[in-house]
Amino acid sequence: MSSPETTISTYDPARVIAGLRVLAAATGGPEGSRRLCWTPEWLEARALLRESLTTLPVEVETDEAGNLWAYLRGHSADTVVVGSHLDSVPKGGWLDGALGVMSGLELLRSLASEGTLPVTVALVDWADEEGARFGRSLFGSAACMGTLDIEVLRGLTDKDGGKLPEVLAGHGVDINNLDGARLRMADVKAYLEVHIEQGPILESKGLAISTVTGTKGIERERLIFLGQAAHAGTMPMEMRRDSFRAAARFALAIAEIGERHAGVTTVGQAQCWPGVVTAVAGETRITMDMRHLSADSLAAMFADAHQAAQAAAEAEGCTVEWEHLFRIPPMPFHPMLLDAARASVREVEGHDVEIPSGALHDASEMAREIPTVMIFSSSIAGLSHTKEEDTSDEHLHMAADAFNRTCRRAIELVATGRL
Amino acid sequence: MSSPETTISTYDPARVIAGLRVLAAATGGPEGSRRLCWTPEWLEARALLRESLTTLPVEVETDEAGNLWAYLRGHSADTVVVGSHLDSVPKGGWLDGALGVMSGLELLRSLASEGTLPVTVALVDWADEEGARFGRSLFGSAACMGTLDIEVLRGLTDKDGGKLPEVLAGHGVDINNLDGARLRMADVKAYLEVHIEQGPILESKGLAISTVTGTKGIERERLIFLGQAAHAGTMPMEMRRDSFRAAARFALAIAEIGERHAGVTTVGQAQCWPGVVTAVAGETRITMDMRHLSADSLAAMFADAHQAAQAAAEAEGCTVEWEHLFRIPPMPFHPMLLDAARASVREVEGHDVEIPSGALHDASEMAREIPTVMIFSSSIAGLSHTKEEDTSDEHLHMAADAFNRTCRRAIELVATGRL
Repeated sequence: MSSPETTISTYDPARVIAGLRVLAAATGGPEGSRRLCWTPEWLEARALLRESLTTLPVEVETDEAGNLWAYLRGHSADTVVVGSHLDSVPKGGWLDGALGVMSGLELLRSLASEGTLPVTVALVDWADEEGARFGRSLFGSAACMGTLDIEVLRGLTDKDGGKLPEVLAGHGVDINNLDGARLRMADVKAYLEVHIEQGPILESKGLAISTVTGTKGIERERLIFLGQAAHAGTMPMEMRRDSFRAAARFALAIAEIGERHAGVTTVGQAQCWPGVVTAVAGETRITMDMRHLSADSLAAMFADAHQAAQAAAEAEGCTVEWEHLFRIPPMPFHPMLLDAARASVREVEGHDVEIPSGALHDASEMAREIPTVMIFSSSIAGLSHTKEEDTSDEHLHMAADAFNRTCRRAIELVATGRL
Repeated sequence: MSSPETTISTYDPARVIAGLRVLAAATGGPEGSRRLCWTPEWLEARALLRESLTTLPVEVETDEAGNLWAYLRGHSADTVVVGSHLDSVPKGGWLDGALGVMSGLELLRSLASEGTLPVTVALVDWADEEGARFGRSLFGSAACMGTLDIEVLRGLTDKDGGKLPEVLAGHGVDINNLDGARLRMADVKAYLEVHIEQGPILESKGLAISTVTGTKGIERERLIFLGQAAHAGTMPMEMRRDSFRAAARFALAIAEIGERHAGVTTVGQAQCWPGVVTAVAGETRITMDMRHLSADSLAAMFADAHQAAQAAAEAEGCTVEWEHLFRIPPMPFHPMLLDAARASVREVEGHDVEIPSGALHDASEMAREIPTVMIFSSSIAGLSHTKEEDTSDEHLHMAADAFNRTCRRAIELVATGRL
């Protein structure tokens, strides 16, 4: 592989940071980012991106799912895609998604100034990664992978009762015609994304950046513990069938399961019925979220969770029912692109640390079919999806630098037919 | 003490049960009892009671708190009060409260037929024992004890926004003038009440009735566990400060505390914030209800609960705050009246079993100042506050019988100056 040092001279991470600040000034504020997808503020963010693209020799297109593409045509139609998303949660952070888009824009800028490429490079701004308005995240990337359920989409509404099909139609997206976006994948040979970690691991290690090994698989379930509602004063302890106590046993057991398998497990929600201070809870509903990068470990955790739920229910004379909420398999990234990322992180920060992503990204969808890799920057205090989300300029600079180097290596891999 | 067998001949438990059925037919139905206090259905129940009273030589009065009194005057103004409440929760049972009123009515009926008594006997139908409309239970009896907080009453509303002061004014009750009801206690020497157990203990022992030793003291608190909200995917297990796990630890510890002290403890409600499947709960609020007949044991349980909450919070890197909800001390019943009840239960069912009441009753208020005792009947499956609430005719019969015998003994104790 050729040394990347010879080809990075025109990529300027400072311009990435400057672009992020312009975006934040236009679509953020004291309450955080206001780039909720399918709203005027999101369109404003995209208008800023389009304006930057007008100065470059790129073809700008919007696909059937509302994703924005900018193609820098090379000698071959084989395409390396880079990108992320401009949309944010309400009162969100300034970096989540935007870092990847602005880093990709700078890649196009630098490549365009370096002559015609052997392959095509495309920047994508995915539509509705957050799913913050209608509850369906990874919308645009899932459309390109054909993993959206159109029937489900038809029924989604926002908090004001707005219907997804109507709102998207107002943005030129016909949910009956999303499959057109799939055709765009035909020539794509690699996908690269740089993102903030949204967690505390790199900060806790004193690091700015790392290679991301993949995105964790997720199992989400609702558990319904069923006992017997009873008067808090008249029902003796030994005759109770207390569903909340069963749920409490499970919550502690599932934490132990997460730790034992080196995964993460969370009970984030609980509701009791009748839910009053004077009654033993006859029914308690909790949610469970469990994640692991290894499919085998995730399956083992899931099996352990079933055993733990059964044991918790029996210990309190209760029963338990499961209600499936969501499932996505682990998405390990591509070995050759992982090597490219490792080499780049080593050049920039001098270490081989790599971590999986606990959060989902558009890269999770892309990795289903396309060789994919990600680079993380640190997140101050691990915070994200809040106006407090932040990363030092130094770390952002290093992340953009490592991303650029990894992209250059990916272009080389595609150009030489190895990817 | 004279043998009660000689004086019970005119008391007919079958008439108690017949009266309960008439009441249920008029103010109940397939959905259960409809005698919510301060509503037309409650007035209908009272009209039936008044109609029965017209045939007796009693003075019927309504006091400043809306309690209905029927006085059977004796040679002395010293008064034995019997009663309970006609009001029910929505879709309630046919026996809760009504058993005590109808048993007391039959007592007046039988005593009236037996010539002038040495003391006065009064039947009371307490107003709003359930507190089901405005959330303040034991309203009428608390008014007689002077334990109502008028400022709190002023702010209470029902689910339709109706204000307590206005609704009660429509029933002739001025909340600024409740203290008049206190004067009515001047000559009261004893209070007796028969009630369904509302729990499963007697049924589990195969018994129809028992003496009630007192009502348990109650401590109610809201506990707020504070940790750190975090992303369920990106926050490693070992760096979490999970408030729901702290609450789960406490829920299991408080159950153990209840068992160890032979009391009852309940966590009946839980709320997580942000309360979504994808986030570690930064804040979890739970309610705690703990009860014991011994003030010392209740105090020990409360101290243990504070230690357990602190330990649970610390184990998960959280803190915990307490918010006081409600407190009532244990109300042990009067030794001489307990002896009277024991003798009566022994005569009727041939045993000395006695249990505390885990639920509050108007007797809990009366016992603050007046020698008090209660008799329980069994409850099928321990159910109450539901249309399924029931007790066999045989057990109701025995409860009314034991109640009558206890009342006769109480009259004797008052007449002879021992009470």
